[in-house]
This record gives sequence, structure tokens and C-alpha cells, in this order.
Amino acid sequence: MITQPTLVLDQARCKANITRMQAKAQKHSISLRPHFKTHQSLEIGRWFKEAGVSKITVSSLMMAEYFAEEWANITVAFPINILEIDSIKRLAKKIQLNILIQSTEIAKILVEKLEDPVNYLIKINIGNNRTGIVPSDIKTINSILKATHKSKQLNFIGFLGHAGQTYRCRSNSEICEVHNQAKQLLVNLKEKYSKDYPETIASYGDTPSCSVADDFTGLDEIRPGNFVFYDLMQQQIGACDYEDIAVAMACPIVSMHEGRSELVIYGGGIHFSKDRMVSQEHGVTYGQVVKAKKQGWKGIVKNMIVRGLSQEHGVIKVPPSEFDNYNIGDLLYVLPVHSCMTADIMKGYLTTNGETIEMLR
Amino acid sequence: MITQPTLVLDQARCKANITRMQAKAQKHSISLRPHFKTHQSLEIGRWFKEAGVSKITVSSLMMAEYFAEEWANITVAFPINILEIDSIKRLAKKIQLNILIQSTEIAKILVEKLEDPVNYLIKINIGNNRTGIVPSDIKTINSILKATHKSKQLNFIGFLGHAGQTYRCRSNSEICEVHNQAKQLLVNLKEKYSKDYPETIASYGDTPSCSVADDFTGLDEIRPGNFVFYDLMQQQIGACDYEDIAVAMACPIVSMHEGRSELVIYGGGIHFSKDRMVSQEHGVTYGQVVKAKKQGWKGIVKNMIVRGLSQEHGVIKVPPSEFDNYNIGDLLYVLPVHSCMTADIMKGYLTTNGETIEMLR
Repeated sequence: MITQPTLVLDQARCKANITRMQAKAQKHSISLRPHFKTHQSLEIGRWFKEAGVSKITVSSLMMAEYFAEEWANITVAFPINILEIDSIKRLAKKIQLNILIQSTEIAKILVEKLEDPVNYLIKINIGNNRTGIVPSDIKTINSILKATHKSKQLNFIGFLGHAGQTYRCRSNSEICEVHNQAKQLLVNLKEKYSKDYPETIASYGDTPSCSVADDFTGLDEIRPGNFVFYDLMQQQIGACDYEDIAVAMACPIVSMHEGRSELVIYGGGIHFSKDRMVSQEHGVTYGQVVKAKKQGWKGIVKNMIVRGLSQEHGVIKVPPSEFDNYNIGDLLYVLPVHSCMTADIMKGYLTTNGETIEMLR
Repeated sequence: MITQPTLVLDQARCKANITRMQAKAQKHSISLRPHFKTHQSLEIGRWFKEAGVSKITVSSLMMAEYFAEEWANITVAFPINILEIDSIKRLAKKIQLNILIQSTEIAKILVEKLEDPVNYLIKINIGNNRTGIVPSDIKTINSILKATHKSKQLNFIGFLGHAGQTYRCRSNSEICEVHNQAKQLLVNLKEKYSKDYPETIASYGDTPSCSVADDFTGLDEIRPGNFVFYDLMQQQIGACDYEDIAVAMACPIVSMHEGRSELVIYGGGIHFSKDRMVSQEHGVTYGQVVKAKKQGWKGIVKNMIVRGLSQEHGVIKVPPSEFDNYNIGDLLYVLPVHSCMTADIMKGYLTTNGETIEMLR
């Protein structure tokens, strides 16, 4: 019995999301190397294996060590944290480790320190302006390649980019426009360097692009992550429907306020995370209430949203006509704004079938 | 050696914050019943004991069970989650448990279910509009008192309010104005009911009020929590100085971007939380860089703030004149926006003396 905020996973939706993305990758003859930072679970990882996936992406060395128990080919899509060199060395002994390099300085340190072979991709800033080398900075790219040219441990395999700017899109056409521009930057680099490095790949990420776009020409692999669960942000962007969202937080109702047509749940920032979205309809929003079923949920309750989160409380706006449908002690099911953050905080899942699924702690 | 994002605790600042608040409570002849949701640590709790504190506040039954190992008088300042009745019963057997009631329905359920004595306070909405009965709703207050009047288990001890609206203040005078209005609402109720219930107390919370205000007439206890660490939000509100903030996240620098004068740290939303503040100077901000010392930190680096957080990355704006002072692999110390949320996610501390401090996991 659920008595506290619990992240409920609809296994059928989740598996459908996995199957759909793998089918899309196969249709376009590219590899799906899913980002596992969203679910962070060996068990959910196995559902990907069942769908034919053999290579994955993670965002920390800690995650890589966790998944290295069951996965032999892992890309750490995060800038090298040189302070964790011991972890890099351990992983390099155990699996095919692929890392990102974006500075000559780091390349030189790794050439000196690595003992086992590691593949690397050069991280390109394809418009997200977070990390990576700008595509026109051929000087730095050449300098990295030169620094690793004679290394037996460090092996260049291609270019990697993340079009995170698709998160600012609000329609399929906007996503496709961003996608086409961003992917072309990677493809151009791949073509330029393929003469000297025939094995060069172009690795491209982000759930909105991979969900919506239909032209992956020139790419070799895609690395979406969030699609395994999706969430309200992806629905707002246009990357999924409400019914694709595979996780919802079950929260006990602890307080009813008919005067202002609000109710309060046990379920706050330490459960959902404080990630938020802003919509024209509702302003700042932290979650959307759905209709609970005997097992799981189906359909949203229109205009019933989380308007505020404190540490343990969530405050829900209730349409006045809905108010009498709820009571203290009921469980409310709420779709999260950003499922990656929510899952990371919750550290585990309860499936709609009542099974517990563990994840990296 | 720190190799990953680590929440560093300056023990001296933390103990000074505790001592100062306890001295203030003693000066005003009121009890300090600190809220332990901020630090959630038995060990830090002992520093309060050393300062003479004997009663505490928490925000969940889970926290109450954790602290019941060492504390005999605990108020759960959160609406009753009736689904956790078993936990309430366990606690009632072990300690002096104080709970909040705000509906007759819950009062009646508890009268029926409780086996051991529990004190209760009626939660009053003193302006924060999250939970609680509005002060004018004498009908509901009387109805709760009537429902529990003959109970041997459920014992009314007073009124409790949280003036969370002080978090919207931006100066001492604004805080004092909110404080005086909010506390008076509680004091009025206490006076009204003292004839029939001479033991009635008024219990009042929030760090901004308790840090800044100097008139606590009529109150019996205060329940601030965040003051144990403070944070950027409290500094912005006017409740503390930068040098009172007792926690900072140490984060490895993983990427430098001179062209846009930014650097990227290993340290993201899953470390800081996505809580944010908006300032006129910097817009949306997720953290403020301080000057690292051999042990700990002192003084902020002006205009060097966290402008964005993804799951694992933090993007830092660097004043161009400061850029050459930093290198990949350095540890950056960053003050968090909201220390309660950050501590809850990080699940532990490293003191500036190099000791590990555990907390509720």
C-alpha cells in the first residue's frame, strides 16, 4: 500500500516508448545508444536489451560504473572530470569506454595517464552553448587530434553533439528546424575528417529531435534519454502526448481548502524536484494531475495542476467542479515536469503491477 | 580528496548560527524548537543539544522516526497524513509527539485510532496560504476542540502558524511588517482560547522573521529551520549575510569557455536542486561562487554566479578579469540558493575539517 510519495512506473508505456524509438533508429539505419541518466536502473536497462540495444550513454562516471555490471559499451556524455581519473582507468580495463574530449590540455593528460584503450569523441557545441568546441574551431579540433595521434590508448572515433536548444521549441516544425541545423554541423565535420579518419561517426542526442524529426541523414547514432519516460516538458515541447508519459507520482492528499479551491499533497520539491515549466494557461507549473485507475492512471484532469512546491508540500489548483471528487487520504497521481530529475531524487520505482524497481543510489 | 560534487559544511559558522538563535530565544524568554528539516542529521542535532535545545520540529513522520532515536519531544509541522497512522502510533508510544490538526474529520479519525497520548496544535493559516485554518474560522476551531474534548489520547496545546510569506520580502522592514501582522493572528487566538485552555501556546516559525524581528510578545516558541545553514535566498531576503552561510558545494571545473567567459562545473540540478532565485543584477541564478581557502571559503567572487543547471552540469558566468584564475580540475565553491533542498538531495556533509557527517537517507 502506498502511504508516502511514490514514483509509479507504467511498464507498458515505458516499453512502448523503448520499442518505438528502437524501431525508428532501425528504420533510419542508425544506432540507438540511449542515454540512461533518465532511469538509472539496471532492470529498466534490460528492457532495452530485449529491444535489441547493446550500447548506452550515461552522464557520470558513477553511472558508468553502475551500468558496467551489465553493459560492455558505454559512452560518458559529460566533459572529462580529471579528478576521477581512477574511475576512468577502472572502466577502461573492464568495458569499451567512450569519452568526450574538448580541450588539448585534457587530451594530453589522458595520453599520459591512460593504461588501457579508450575511444574518444570530440564534443561539438551544436547550438546549446553549454559545453563543446564551436564547429568552426578547426584549430582546436586539429590540436586534439595531433595530441592523441600517436597514442595507443586514446582512439578518435568521431564527433558528438547535443541539441539541447530543442527544449526551447514549442512545435514539431520548430524542433525539425533546430534539428536540421544542429545535426548538419556534426555531419559537416564528420565529412571533413572522414578522409583522414574513415571510421569517424556523428553521434547526436536529445529526446525532442529524436522523437519528432524524420531526417537523420549522415548521422551514425542517436542518444535520446528522456523518451523512456517522457514528461510534461516533452509534452509541452511537442515531443510526446500525455498518454506516452510513463511515470506519475502518487501522493497522499493531506489538506483540503475549498475556499480557494486548492488541495495540498504530501509530495514536494524533495520528491518532484523544483524543475518547473511555464505555460500560457497556468503560469508556473510543477505537475499535472491525472485520473487514477485501479492500476495506474489514464487521461489528465484538465486545469488541475501543481501550482507550488515546498520541501514536502505540493499545492494543487482544483477546478471547483472537481473539488468534491477528492478527500483527505486519497492518493493523487501527478505527472512530473521533468522525469529525469524526479527519478534521480526518488531513487526507485513502483510499477503499476506493484513491483519495486531499483536504481542507482 | 574531493573528486565529485560535495556539500561542504563550515562547522564554525553553523554553530555560530545555532548559538545566536538560541541566545535570541532566551533573551525573549521563548523556546527555540528548531526545525530539523534543513540539516536532517542526528550529529548536527547534537550541536543544538549542546546549546541547550531540548525540543524540535520536523516536516515528516519519517524524519520524526529518525530523530526519535535521540529526541524525546518532536512536533511534526505538516498536516496529518492519515495513511501513515502506523508511524504516528509508533511515535506516540516512544516520545512526546506533537501533531497538527486542521480539520474535524482528521480529529475524529485520530480520536478513534490513537492508543497513546499525543499533543496537538491547530494549524492556522497566518498569511502563507498553503495549509491551515484561516484565523476567522472560529467554527472549525471549535468543532475540532469539541471533537477531541473527551479524548484521553488527543490533547490540545495551542496554535501553530508559519509566516512563509516572509520569503517574498526583500528588506528587514518588510520582514518586520509581515512578522508583526502574522504573529498577532496567532497571539489573538491564543488569548481568546486561554480562558478555557490555560495551557494554550502560540508556536511561530520561519527563518526570516526569527532572524530579523525583535518583537516576539505573546509567542511561546519559535521554529526556524533554515538558519542553521542559511543560503542565498535568505541573504537576498535580508535574513543573513553571505558570511553566515554555512554550506557550499565544492564542484570540479570540467570545461572552460573563454569566448563567452563561462565555465562548466560537475555539479547540476541533482546536486544543488533546481531551486532558483531571480535578482535584478543577474536574472535567474542557481548559485554564487565564493573564494576557496585552504579550509573552506571566505567572501564571494562578485558577479560569478551559476546561470544554468542541467542534470549534472552547472554553467558559471565568469567576470572576464577572473577567467584566468581558474583551470579545469580546480574545485569551485558555490553557495546554494536553498540549502534545505540542497542538503536533502546530497544526503550528507563533509566539514571543512575533513569529517563526514551523516544524515537521514
